[in-house]
Amino acid sequence: MRLSRYFLPVLKEAPSDAQIVSHQLMLRAGMIRQEAAGIYAWLPLGLRVLKKVERIVREEMDRAGAIELLMPTIQLADLWRESGRYDDYGDEMLRITDRHKRDLLYGPTAEEVVTDIFRASVKSYKDLPKNLYNIQWKFRDERRPRFGVMRGREFLMKDAYSFDLDAEGARKAYNRMFVAYLNLFSRMGLKAVPMRADTGPIGGDLSHEFIVLAETGESAVFCHKDLVEMAAPGPDIDWYGDLQPLVNERTALYAATEEMHDEAAFAALPEGDRLSARGIEVGHIFSFGTKYSEPMKALVTGPDGKDVPVQMGSYGVGVSRLLGAIIEASHDEGGIIWPESVAPFDVGVINMRQGDAACDEACETAYKALQAAGRDVLYDDNDTRGGAKFATMDLIGVPWQLIVGPKGIAEGVVELKNRKTGERHSAPLAEVIAQLSAQNPGKAA
Amino acid sequence: MRLSRYFLPVLKEAPSDAQIVSHQLMLRAGMIRQEAAGIYAWLPLGLRVLKKVERIVREEMDRAGAIELLMPTIQLADLWRESGRYDDYGDEMLRITDRHKRDLLYGPTAEEVVTDIFRASVKSYKDLPKNLYNIQWKFRDERRPRFGVMRGREFLMKDAYSFDLDAEGARKAYNRMFVAYLNLFSRMGLKAVPMRADTGPIGGDLSHEFIVLAETGESAVFCHKDLVEMAAPGPDIDWYGDLQPLVNERTALYAATEEMHDEAAFAALPEGDRLSARGIEVGHIFSFGTKYSEPMKALVTGPDGKDVPVQMGSYGVGVSRLLGAIIEASHDEGGIIWPESVAPFDVGVINMRQGDAACDEACETAYKALQAAGRDVLYDDNDTRGGAKFATMDLIGVPWQLIVGPKGIAEGVVELKNRKTGERHSAPLAEVIAQLSAQNPGKAA
Repeated sequence: MRLSRYFLPVLKEAPSDAQIVSHQLMLRAGMIRQEAAGIYAWLPLGLRVLKKVERIVREEMDRAGAIELLMPTIQLADLWRESGRYDDYGDEMLRITDRHKRDLLYGPTAEEVVTDIFRASVKSYKDLPKNLYNIQWKFRDERRPRFGVMRGREFLMKDAYSFDLDAEGARKAYNRMFVAYLNLFSRMGLKAVPMRADTGPIGGDLSHEFIVLAETGESAVFCHKDLVEMAAPGPDIDWYGDLQPLVNERTALYAATEEMHDEAAFAALPEGDRLSARGIEVGHIFSFGTKYSEPMKALVTGPDGKDVPVQMGSYGVGVSRLLGAIIEASHDEGGIIWPESVAPFDVGVINMRQGDAACDEACETAYKALQAAGRDVLYDDNDTRGGAKFATMDLIGVPWQLIVGPKGIAEGVVELKNRKTGERHSAPLAEVIAQLSAQNPGKAA
Repeated sequence: MRLSRYFLPVLKEAPSDAQIVSHQLMLRAGMIRQEAAGIYAWLPLGLRVLKKVERIVREEMDRAGAIELLMPTIQLADLWRESGRYDDYGDEMLRITDRHKRDLLYGPTAEEVVTDIFRASVKSYKDLPKNLYNIQWKFRDERRPRFGVMRGREFLMKDAYSFDLDAEGARKAYNRMFVAYLNLFSRMGLKAVPMRADTGPIGGDLSHEFIVLAETGESAVFCHKDLVEMAAPGPDIDWYGDLQPLVNERTALYAATEEMHDEAAFAALPEGDRLSARGIEVGHIFSFGTKYSEPMKALVTGPDGKDVPVQMGSYGVGVSRLLGAIIEASHDEGGIIWPESVAPFDVGVINMRQGDAACDEACETAYKALQAAGRDVLYDDNDTRGGAKFATMDLIGVPWQLIVGPKGIAEGVVELKNRKTGERHSAPLAEVIAQLSAQNPGKAA
């Protein structure tokens, strides 16, 4: 993309109501624009990151055997009356009446809809296990939306729903998602710690939140410090084998959100192992048995010929919120430092003297060669000062910046800068192009 | 994908309220499920096609220089009051009140939002031309939703918006979209004819609908018959050059929807050239000058230093509706015949005797090799009769079907069937795999 043709409305200063750094940086970098309280437009740069995050989530769900569908944003109130949640849900549900006076709502989650889809066609244990997921916009009418995309009203969520014949199957389904979540957050450069959590309005008896530690986190969390640096299992897993040991490795160590915190158990840890911090919830998984299948009569016939309500779980990832969490975890005074796997552009090309024939030619060569190699390239071809170009590339967090100036070109070299380390080195253009072409950050580890 | 692990709830019969063939087939093929009047869940098979259609639309928009962003589904009523459309829009607008009694709406289109985004940052002619588009769910509260995704309430639309300094620039922007539309519909196997059209609630003085001819079309259309078979220009176009000749080639011939129909002009055509038919609107483009920029004060400074309201146009494609249009144009008594560019799976592998070691092995080999070659493969590994497997593959419209039976395997061959022509031929497995691996229907022509 040539910056001169792009739409990148960066701001000198963030509006004063942006309180946390991710919100400030997303506004300044021209990633989002507030359209109403808690409702954002995703400008081109923000949308690029959102799509990369979404793609990682999708790939890891697919890998773990979940099947993607897409449920509508608008749901029938009657379905929620069946489950008994319509009246319970309270003011956070955006309730709507259509022209025929029918009660609708903007889905804050989709347990009811997916249960309805399931019960319409699946009748036998032979069709189980199933895990259906979708990545769709949701709405929660927060009383006080704040922190940008971290606590918005309209937000993008990945929600998966598992269906199993019995509790043992449900536990396996839960474990598959538990492990998939470790991998997917890791691919985005996040250290997300699974913690025992309250089940809230979803219900159920088993639940973990996946928490990214950050000073600006909305809730207090408590865990064994070893959990933070524990490596993700990676993709080479027998998804239908026994994942319990992988889960136990984590759950054996103390980790709980504020609501589930056990002071005594935490105090029993050696002092050096105790980590008391603040955290951002980026995922939340639930096992809730027959809470929905029983009232909604989602029955399956078992091998014994008897009909039983199907065992369910649900598994959420806050896709749009993840962008805020990643920025909270990875930025400096210059701006955002994107992990390469989710960066809006892989490489920025900075022309220090637009209009200089040799500089222009080198930049064009780099731009075209890197695009041909499948890299996402932003070429700053504007007629502005080098300093302003550096500041913009750093602000928007492009991981690799290729700097072309007249002095270097005269000597046959360009500069390559790493956004994260700040390191620069000079090398011939062809060498730098070859190096950058060989990288492929989008792929799974 | 192994069918035994997939979620493909095909139906023996379509519900009686499905009146047109695309609606019937989408329900029978397990592509969609109605959740409320005019509101559908996209089941896994339907979502696959939707994403392929969406991808073609995106690629052709990008090629024509448009830049993607994403506007929220929920919009502020106040913006529509600025443009003057809030009261005019009528009952089709889904009006919503939030917990703080603020007036919101589910966007039926986004002229106001995009104008607001534009005016916040673009101030100079130097930043023009711009074309911003998004592919987002919209809602129109149709009085009588019907025909499945063809006239739904919640639907996926690609809407692009162009911004230019003057009428000449706006005309060029209009032409770019006109030509891009010819290409994008063509890539989906559709013959879409541009016709002079009424501007309706969007407004403006220049407008074309892109119409796919079909008996079940909702409106009467009239055109010169040569327009139907006119080939699309293809991607190798100088998008910022003079596209007027390409547009004139089409607009010189008579073509109009019912509202714009000129009986006398049509009657003046030689009788053999007159085509009077029914049509499905799949795209609609508008040039409306300053209709929104003037009341909303979206001003740009020209080279003369004077501020003028920016010239705008908008360009819609009914992405979800396109699936219905494609099926209306391409089906037979056995089911859907997907053009290869949008097929949910490229290849179906049919195991005629599941459990037979040689058949299973050949199927596994084909399944893995074709997936490794980047093809989307559906492997019917269920323990059902061959006849039922054939019927399902034909119903869901998989373009190439690789049939593995014990007799063929004993002779060292498998069968390859083309869904569209019905032709079958036998060949060694390796040969068929090589043939199917070499195809790449997703790419631009």
